[in-house]
Amino acid sequence: MIPGMEYRDQDVSNCSIARALEIVGQPWVLLVLREAFRGIRRFDEIQDHLGVSRSVLAARLEKMVGAGLLERQAYREQGQRTRWEYQLTDKGRELYPVLTALRQWGDAHLADPEGPPVLAEHADCGAHVRVQLVCDHGHALDGDRDVIRRPGPSARLRQPARH
Amino acid sequence: MIPGMEYRDQDVSNCSIARALEIVGQPWVLLVLREAFRGIRRFDEIQDHLGVSRSVLAARLEKMVGAGLLERQAYREQGQRTRWEYQLTDKGRELYPVLTALRQWGDAHLADPEGPPVLAEHADCGAHVRVQLVCDHGHALDGDRDVIRRPGPSARLRQPARH
Repeated sequence: MIPGMEYRDQDVSNCSIARALEIVGQPWVLLVLREAFRGIRRFDEIQDHLGVSRSVLAARLEKMVGAGLLERQAYREQGQRTRWEYQLTDKGRELYPVLTALRQWGDAHLADPEGPPVLAEHADCGAHVRVQLVCDHGHALDGDRDVIRRPGPSARLRQPARH
Repeated sequence: MIPGMEYRDQDVSNCSIARALEIVGQPWVLLVLREAFRGIRRFDEIQDHLGVSRSVLAARLEKMVGAGLLERQAYREQGQRTRWEYQLTDKGRELYPVLTALRQWGDAHLADPEGPPVLAEHADCGAHVRVQLVCDHGHALDGDRDVIRRPGPSARLRQPARH
């Protein structure tokens, strides 16, 4: 780490945002997670709800299992063959704030004139749920202008660009 | 709106998450926004830092301007020709929680062993910045298990799947 390093001189190859996007940067990954958070976890139900072909969905779910976001579990209803459902892992569940932040922004800027299609409410009190920027001292932040960035422990200088 | 409608019966074509992903679901969109939040807003700097070709970057920035995330502004340094920089709009700025949520998840699951490459700190107190699930009554939520969803004002029944 080089404490005074400017972001423009920093090697971005280990950026956590970029690495997160390598895993969840395909829109369908977040849409499958959305379904899982909303209780749609069985292959047939996901396939039916998302309207994607079985082979495409199978390949996508396999990637998400490989990335540690979902776990495949067998289930069998009376008199039927074994089928598969996909449970969220802890790692997958921890993406809930990403989905909530996307929902919040979509609700604000892209919803139909009547309002949002889905409301998320606190189970305890019924109030609307959203994400809030906070700091570890418990302060609420208004936005990015309240944030200062500095190089972290794995910051590296980048190689000069080849021109 | 149909209050008792189950999510599995809901038409997802107006989902705010899906609509948000139509705009920001390409990883490069969020990476360009990352650069803008970190002060890298001039075409040449973005191009140099992201290592993308000029023509590709120009097309991408044009899309982001068209989507209302960035505004193009001319600048000119002494003795040079006019160049372009890209300022975040309010709509673009409101995506900061999405990036913070992605950073947080990436820092937790994908960082190098030494730790995160970039630290985000509250300008006022220096404490680490993150997103927190909260409700409008001011409660902090642990995660998705504290959330109940119900159909919102623009919820519509979906058409039965064609089998």
